[in-house]
Order: sequence, then C-alpha cells, then structure tokens
Amino acid sequence: MPAYTAPIRDLQFVLHEVLDVRASGVPGCEGLDPGFTGAILEEAGKLAHEVLAPLNASGDREGCRLENGVVHTPKGYREAFAAMRQGGWTALDSDPAYGGQGLPYVIYSAVGEIFVSANMAFNMYQGLTHGAFSAIHKHGTDAQKATYLPKLASCDWTGTMNLTEPHCGTDLGLLRTRAEPQADGSYKITGQKIFISAGEHDLAENIIHLVLAKAPGGGEGTRGISLFIVPKVLVKADGSLGPRNALSAGHIEEKMGIHGNATCVMNYDGATGYLLGELHKGMRAMFTMMNEARLSVGLQGYAVAEAAYQNSLAYAKERLQGRDVRGARNPSGPADPLIVHPDIRRNLMDQKSFVEGARALTLWGASLIDREQRLGDGAAEGLISLLTPVIKGFLTDRGFDMTVQAQQVWGGHGYIEEQGMSQFVRDARITMIYEGANGVQALDLVGRKLAQDGGKALMGFFDMVKGFVRENEGDAALKADFLDPLKAASKDLQAAALYFMENGLKDPNAALAGSYDFMHLFGHVCLGLMWARQARAAQTALTSGAGDRTFHEAKLVTGRYYMARHLPATALHLARIRTGAGPVMALADAAF
Amino acid sequence: MPAYTAPIRDLQFVLHEVLDVRASGVPGCEGLDPGFTGAILEEAGKLAHEVLAPLNASGDREGCRLENGVVHTPKGYREAFAAMRQGGWTALDSDPAYGGQGLPYVIYSAVGEIFVSANMAFNMYQGLTHGAFSAIHKHGTDAQKATYLPKLASCDWTGTMNLTEPHCGTDLGLLRTRAEPQADGSYKITGQKIFISAGEHDLAENIIHLVLAKAPGGGEGTRGISLFIVPKVLVKADGSLGPRNALSAGHIEEKMGIHGNATCVMNYDGATGYLLGELHKGMRAMFTMMNEARLSVGLQGYAVAEAAYQNSLAYAKERLQGRDVRGARNPSGPADPLIVHPDIRRNLMDQKSFVEGARALTLWGASLIDREQRLGDGAAEGLISLLTPVIKGFLTDRGFDMTVQAQQVWGGHGYIEEQGMSQFVRDARITMIYEGANGVQALDLVGRKLAQDGGKALMGFFDMVKGFVRENEGDAALKADFLDPLKAASKDLQAAALYFMENGLKDPNAALAGSYDFMHLFGHVCLGLMWARQARAAQTALTSGAGDRTFHEAKLVTGRYYMARHLPATALHLARIRTGAGPVMALADAAF
Repeated sequence: MPAYTAPIRDLQFVLHEVLDVRASGVPGCEGLDPGFTGAILEEAGKLAHEVLAPLNASGDREGCRLENGVVHTPKGYREAFAAMRQGGWTALDSDPAYGGQGLPYVIYSAVGEIFVSANMAFNMYQGLTHGAFSAIHKHGTDAQKATYLPKLASCDWTGTMNLTEPHCGTDLGLLRTRAEPQADGSYKITGQKIFISAGEHDLAENIIHLVLAKAPGGGEGTRGISLFIVPKVLVKADGSLGPRNALSAGHIEEKMGIHGNATCVMNYDGATGYLLGELHKGMRAMFTMMNEARLSVGLQGYAVAEAAYQNSLAYAKERLQGRDVRGARNPSGPADPLIVHPDIRRNLMDQKSFVEGARALTLWGASLIDREQRLGDGAAEGLISLLTPVIKGFLTDRGFDMTVQAQQVWGGHGYIEEQGMSQFVRDARITMIYEGANGVQALDLVGRKLAQDGGKALMGFFDMVKGFVRENEGDAALKADFLDPLKAASKDLQAAALYFMENGLKDPNAALAGSYDFMHLFGHVCLGLMWARQARAAQTALTSGAGDRTFHEAKLVTGRYYMARHLPATALHLARIRTGAGPVMALADAAF
Repeated sequence: MPAYTAPIRDLQFVLHEVLDVRASGVPGCEGLDPGFTGAILEEAGKLAHEVLAPLNASGDREGCRLENGVVHTPKGYREAFAAMRQGGWTALDSDPAYGGQGLPYVIYSAVGEIFVSANMAFNMYQGLTHGAFSAIHKHGTDAQKATYLPKLASCDWTGTMNLTEPHCGTDLGLLRTRAEPQADGSYKITGQKIFISAGEHDLAENIIHLVLAKAPGGGEGTRGISLFIVPKVLVKADGSLGPRNALSAGHIEEKMGIHGNATCVMNYDGATGYLLGELHKGMRAMFTMMNEARLSVGLQGYAVAEAAYQNSLAYAKERLQGRDVRGARNPSGPADPLIVHPDIRRNLMDQKSFVEGARALTLWGASLIDREQRLGDGAAEGLISLLTPVIKGFLTDRGFDMTVQAQQVWGGHGYIEEQGMSQFVRDARITMIYEGANGVQALDLVGRKLAQDGGKALMGFFDMVKGFVRENEGDAALKADFLDPLKAASKDLQAAALYFMENGLKDPNAALAGSYDFMHLFGHVCLGLMWARQARAAQTALTSGAGDRTFHEAKLVTGRYYMARHLPATALHLARIRTGAGPVMALADAAF
C-alpha cells in the first residue's frame, strides 16, 4: 500500500523563503511565523498520515453505495470526517464572524495539498463545503449567512455545486432546470443535475446544494440563470432541521477514479430553494468562485502527483534490478537499486521538478487571492484571473502525466491495483476534466483573459518577469542557469501573444487553434519563474550560511533540471501556435 | 457503449498504395491483390464488429474469476474464441506444414489491428498462442513441432510466455525458477512466475507454457537460462491428452485494465518440462521472438487509440455544445456540435494523424519481418531490429496519450465507466509496460541497437530517408509540406546520434540520460517518413485521376498536420539530449 509523508520542509520553504508571506503586508499574514505555520502543517500531516492516507486505497476499492436513497461512504470515512471536523480544517481561512479561523488562504492551500495528497476523494467532501461557504459568504443575505455559514464552517453540514445537466456541461446556456417563484419568496426547483460530487452521503446531517436554474423572465442563454440554495433538509426559522426537501440522489456514477467520493445524479422535484445573490445573475455569482475552485483543482493536479512521486521514489530506491553501467553500486546485493539507472532518474527528476515548481506556483496564486480579498489589490486580482486557467489546465495535465510516470517506475507491479499506483493515475485523471475541461481553460485564457482590461494583466506579468531578471542579473550563476532560460521562454510567450493579436482579429480560429499550446507555454514560463525565484531563495540561504546545505542545494539542482530539460518546450509550443488555424481547420467535417 | 468499425480503406491504402506489398518480391506476397486482402479484412472486420467488440466492455466489467484452480473468462468469451478458432485467424501467416495458411506477416498484422481495436484483452489469448507457435516453430525439434504446432495453429491449445518472477522482470539474470534434468531427458520445473497473461482459462483444452528457468551448470546471470515447454496437460505419445502437469494458477491479478485477460501467478511444483532449443541459450531463443512480440505491442498501442479515436470523433460530431465563434453552424439546433471548436479539432487531428502514421509504420515494420524471414534480407533484419524498440516504445506512449485525449473529448462523461472511454485508457496503459517497459526499450535502442554492426542499420535508415527526399524533391508541394520538415527532423536525429557517439564513450550516462528522448525523436522521424510516403501515394492517386478525392485529400491534410505540428518536437528532444548526463545525474540519491 502506498505511503505518504507531508513535505513540510518544502511547504515551509515556499511559504517563508520564497513568498515570505509574513512580510507580505496582507492582513492576517503578520502572525505567520515559521513556528506557527510549521505547527499547523505538522498537525495536518498527522491527520493525513494517521487517518486519511490509510483510507485512500480502501476507499477506492470499496467505493460508495446507494441504497434506498442513502449513500454509504466507504468504511472509516465517517470517523475520518469527524476528525476533520474536530480539527476545524474546513474553516481555517474563513470569516471568524461565522466560526472560521480567519487565516490567509495561502495557509488553507498549503494544508489542502497535504489532505489531497493523502486522500483526494475524501478531501473533496470538505473542499466543496469550503466552496459553498465562500459562495454564501460573498453573495448571501445576512439571514442566509447566519443560517448556513456556521454549520458549513463546522462541517456539520456539507456543500455541493450543481451546474451540469445530462445535455450540457460547458454550455450552461442550455440548462433546463427551472425555478418557479413562490408566494413566500422561495422557489420551487425542478430538474436533473449530474456529476454532483458529494451530492448525497452519510457524513453530515444536512447537505446544502447550490443549484443553477432558470427563473422566469431572465431571457435566453446564460443570462437567464440564477443561483439557489437548496438544502437537503429544510432549516426551520430557529435553525433546527425540519422536513426533507423534495430532492434525491437517483444514481451514483461508476467512475474511473475518486471512488470514495459519491458522484450523484440529483433529482429536484419541486424542491424548495432560496435565491442566492441577484436574480438572473447566477453566472456572475458562479464566476466569482471560479478562481478559487479552479486553483483548488490545479492544486489537486500536483498534490496527487506528489503522493505518486513519493511512492515511485521509494520503489526506485528499494527495487533491485540491473547494474549501474559504470560499475556495481550495491556489489554485495544481487543487483543495484533502480535509481542508479539514468532513465529512472530522468523520470524521477521530471516528477520532482514539476511538483516543486507547481507547489510554488499554486501557493503564489493563493497568496494573490489573499492580496485581492484582504487588500483589495487590483493588480493581484487581474493577475490571478489571468493565471487561473494556466494553473488549472497546465498543472492538471502535467500532474496526470507525472502520475503515469510514477506508475511506470513500478513496471508491471504498477499495473496491479493492489499496489496503489494505478489509483493515483485514475484519480488524477478527473482533474483535467472537472471545473471546466482543460480545453475550456485554454479557451478562457486565450479568448477572454488575455485581452481583459486591454491586456493589462499580461503586461503586468511580463513586467514582473523582466523586473525579476533585471534585479538578479548580477548573480552570474543565477543568470546562466535560471534567468537566461527564463528570458528566452518569456520571449516565446510574448511572441505567441503577439501572434494572436496580429492574427486573431482577422480569424479568431488562428488564436483558438493555438490556445492549448498557449496554455502550456504559459505554464512552462510560470514554472520557470517559480524555479528562478526558488533558486534565488535557495542561493540566499546558502550564501548566508544559514541554509540547510543538502536541502537548498537540491533545490538548485532540481531547478536547473527544469530549466534545462523542460523550459525549452516553449519553443515547440510557439512553433505550433504559429502554424495558425490552417492545419487544425483544414479538414472538412465530413472527411474525418 | 463504444462502437468500432474496421478502417479497411485505410488498411488497404497502406498495404497497396504505400507499401505495394504485391510488388515487394516477398514469397507469398504475389497473390495479395487488393481484392483478396480486402476480402480478408472484411471478414476480420465482421468478426470484430459482430463478436469481439460487443464483448469488450462487458469483459472489462466482468473480468476473470479463479475458482478451485479454474479460471472463468467473461461471458461470451468461449463462443467468441470458437469463432476465432473457426476462422483460422491465429495461423493466418503460419507454416502450412503445421496447419497455417502461409500468408505474409504483414497481413496477419493488418488483421491484428482490427482484432485489437475491437477487443484487446480478448485478442491476447490468440496473440500469445501465435507467439508460442513461432517460438516452437523456430527452436523446436521435429517431434515437438509435430506435437504442438497443429494444435496451436488451430487454437485448440493456447500458449503463454513465462519470464517474470516476483523479484525480477527486466533483470532476468536474477530468476530463481529451477529446471532439474530427469533420466528420460525431460526436466522438473519448480518456481513461481508472475504476470502470466492467459496463464489459465477455460477457452482451450490445453495451455502450452513456455518457461524460462535455470538448469544446472549454466553459470550465473542470464547465461544460465534455458527455455522449456511446460504443458498444462501432458501430451501422450499418440498426441492425446494425458494427466495434468504439476502446475497451477495460484492467483489472478486485479489490474488497471485488460480485465478480460487472466493475468496469473503460475506455480510450478516439479512440473514436467521439455527443453526448447539449446540448453543455457534460452535468452537467445527468447530474443528471436522479441521483434515480433514487441511489434505486436506497438500495434496494440495505436490499435486501441484507433478505437478510442473513432468514439471521440462520433461524440464530437453528435454532442451539441457552444457555438462556432465565426457564426452558428447548426442554427436550428440549440448549439453546434463539438467538432466546430478549434481545440476539439486540434485534439481529433492529433489522434487521427498519429494513428494513421503509426499504422503505416507498423505495417512497414511487419513487411520488413517478411523480408527478413522469407527473403533472408539482412538489411531488413538490421532495420527492423533497430526500429523495434522505437515502434514498441513510441507507439505505445503516444497511443496511450491519444486514448487520454479521446476520453477528454467526452468531458465528464468520459470519466464514467459506462461510456467505455476510460477502458481504452486503462487497457492502453499496459502496452507501455509489458514486453519490456518503455524505458527498457529506450535502453535497448541506445545501449545496443544504435551501435550494432558498427551502426550499419542506422546509416541505412538515414540513407533511406535521404534517398526518399532526393527522389521526390522535384515535387514542389511534397517538398515544402513534407520533405523539408522530414529533412530537418532527420538532421536532428543525426545530431543526437552524433552527440551519443562523441560523449557516450567517455560517459555512458551521457547517452543513457537521453535515451528516452532519443526513442521519441526517432519515433517522430519515422512517422514523418511514413507521412511523406503516404503523401506521395495520395498525390500519385490524385494526379492520376484514379484517386478517391475525399479520401486522398484527407491523407494530405492529415499528413500536413503531423508535419507542421508534431514533427517539430524533434528539436526539443535534441535540446534535451544535448544537456547530457549532468541535469539527470546531478542529484545525490540521498538528496531526493
């Protein structure tokens, strides 16, 4: 069975040595000294190690069962959820006025990585609850907040998000679920929603569904959509639970992975719902939550890869097979460990350099959300809005690839379910699909985000890269290994953006055909920037003599690997982008 | 449930218009006119469509069951195997002296694609039987041939290959299974083998296991290994079945995919075995079968991708979601089909251009095996030996990626097992692992094949590419779209080989660290060559006026896509290779 240990030293490195969160000026960050965050991460690691990780494989094997309208989660989930609840983890960063602990989102994210690595399917129950809290907190009335938020903060109730219907996922303008206004101001919700994660389960006494539906008078397409709070059990005026609402889980899907999470078909049969936010502006309400939700999925992408990496590394050190071509390294044993072989190391370094770069990028993204929400920093808001599809799309694509590589280290044993490596692949696969399939992320990036505010955020990003390079160019080692490659990659990104500007107006397909490559190009530049920043932090620590030699030198070596072997992919993506719409669009539909 | 239609027109195009098999001068090919091969492919397609494909999803769901030593294959497998047997498909290319039909291997491969696309797990039962036939045919005594071959040709008996043990897969020198010589010339085989595909089942009355084991006196490592025929049921002198042999399936593995195939732990408890080929030269006997076996796995890589592609294409044409950015294409419907979106087309074109290039490469490889075996063509033998790890490694890596892309077209529905797209991904995953994990293929390519015979085969490959370019340079359209990119890619491959020559002697790791990239670089050049050849064939047909306009123009468009958007990856692989051993090897084992 796979093992997992929380990479606390690495998380601390990013929080303090790279991002220096305490000095960020963000309210709530001033108390985040390394001792404090270390204690939180240790505590989260303990829960992950002792409670969540041991249920990962068993939850995958057992899955969820729907019987007479009740969903039974896998053995041990109820106890684990009680432990999660008791630790107050869901509300770590939530408003203290409603039972939260008020810490910055960047800490919630660092803890989130640990929980996802340990057990992604399980962690979704609390992750979705966190999302529902955010939505109601931002858009709810005072009465709604008072009714729902404390219960969501404590995880006595959990939350869901109901968007997809059988015939529409991306194109929500097509949705058919209806909301009929009632005399008392509530609505009757009728329709079917699918792919509802945690739609029904036995972990909490109530489930608060947030449901997109069309109310009369809103017009066609996405304009007519509103968002509703639809509790599984109706809540009485005094806050106690009343009768069951007219909704039920009709089916749970048998999926490729995340078997521990119940993915439900939800039927709303005139269920009572309450408008959340403005009428006919449900899409806007949804979008304000998107950055956070998509960042969480990007985090899942690399967090599952981290767990898979740990297990491929352990196997590479332990499994004896073949000899080092330069001479036996384990001469008294029957063979050398796999890790002596260059191609195995290539595989491991791919994983390691990706995960560590992705961690820095995700936590940096989370810190931008803190700046946006706690400082009202418009530049941070623009930047995270731009980076969100990159973080979601690139980190989940590459994270999935890395779980496949981790499985590969195990050879035939990796294909056997009992060993657990397959589960990482199967679980990670969903991250490329949900919260907007990655093709939709690329479309969002190129079709919407690039040009937003006249391209201000993109210009800001380039300025930041240039500024970082300028600031550090005096350091010869940093320059050759990190800054020069970063400059070249960033130039490729600029050239791609320029290509879109010059050609996209004449033919939007000239830009859209290159959108997926652009997302990956951008992702590489982001990871290049993150590695340059991590390298500077590592070098600072080493120069000052205060560093942990082995740890900080490993950061430099791992960063150099990424810069030398992965960053050059930007040129390939640029070359593809410059082929324009032609190759992609040339074949007539009928000729496929 | 996924559908499958055999791509007979595409197979015929490769066989006749690209390879011109009938004119190849290979004995047995002279009768292969398009009418004849078309009839064979139609017949195979019928079996695939009516019998095999309908069992693909159900076999995956049901899997195999081991009860009291008997393995029950999924419902319908027995009847399907009877149909397979009745068609004589396993022995299509086998020696007529032993019940085969004597057709060239290239036809067996074309038919194999169809069966694998329809049901990979099922087809393995006959595929492994074909492999056992080849091994006994090549290395067996006359008596052994007479005893086993007719029964294997008819699939009354099936075959297996027993290499792996719990502690060793790649490093067979470590194996522990023992063969003790008996007074009657037979051996007693004792040991445990794992990952034995089709090791036990209910489809045939006997199973002929080919088992690697160590007999006394052979010395250490792989030198001491011999190959043995170990029948499940002993065969009496008159050819009738005698008592059960002392072997049994102890367990069947629960795997990520290919659930319809029983992957067994086989226990040999002093089982009677018969030496196949020379004593202590079992590895050599194994290796003579490797090219064929690895080519078959490469074929699986693209054949599963073909099936996945067909289903992603169907979904892209049918699923209505969003609008063409240039204006509605289905204005009377609620939305346009997915295929109007550039990024969906990018995805589909990736799949299509890969599968069609891979098909040409695999059938070309099969035709080289025909030349080797039927003409004794040494150049063909050298070339296919060189290309085998490329075909196996590159086509399975990329084939797997394409099944993931096919699944992605389906969005959330692709993640639901019921839809069948997940199965393609799970089944395809094994092809990167078995018959030598792809890292081992890369090692074989760079560590062994490149320098074989002083690099003669590699030089031959380059000469062939150059010759093709020279011969066709007069055609301006071919030159710009196909020959120039091919030349550039081939130059990258030469530069990479040169880098290995210049640096590999000083430090073998400088070559091995780039081996995986080299395998992919080589794969791209091969597909570039195949597309150039296919483009010439298509253009010839169009110019002559005899072509099917839609079909042949689609070939040109698809080929241009590959050349423009995929072939440039060679530069990235070369850049990585040139970073040498440094980045890969720099991190101390302990610092991981």
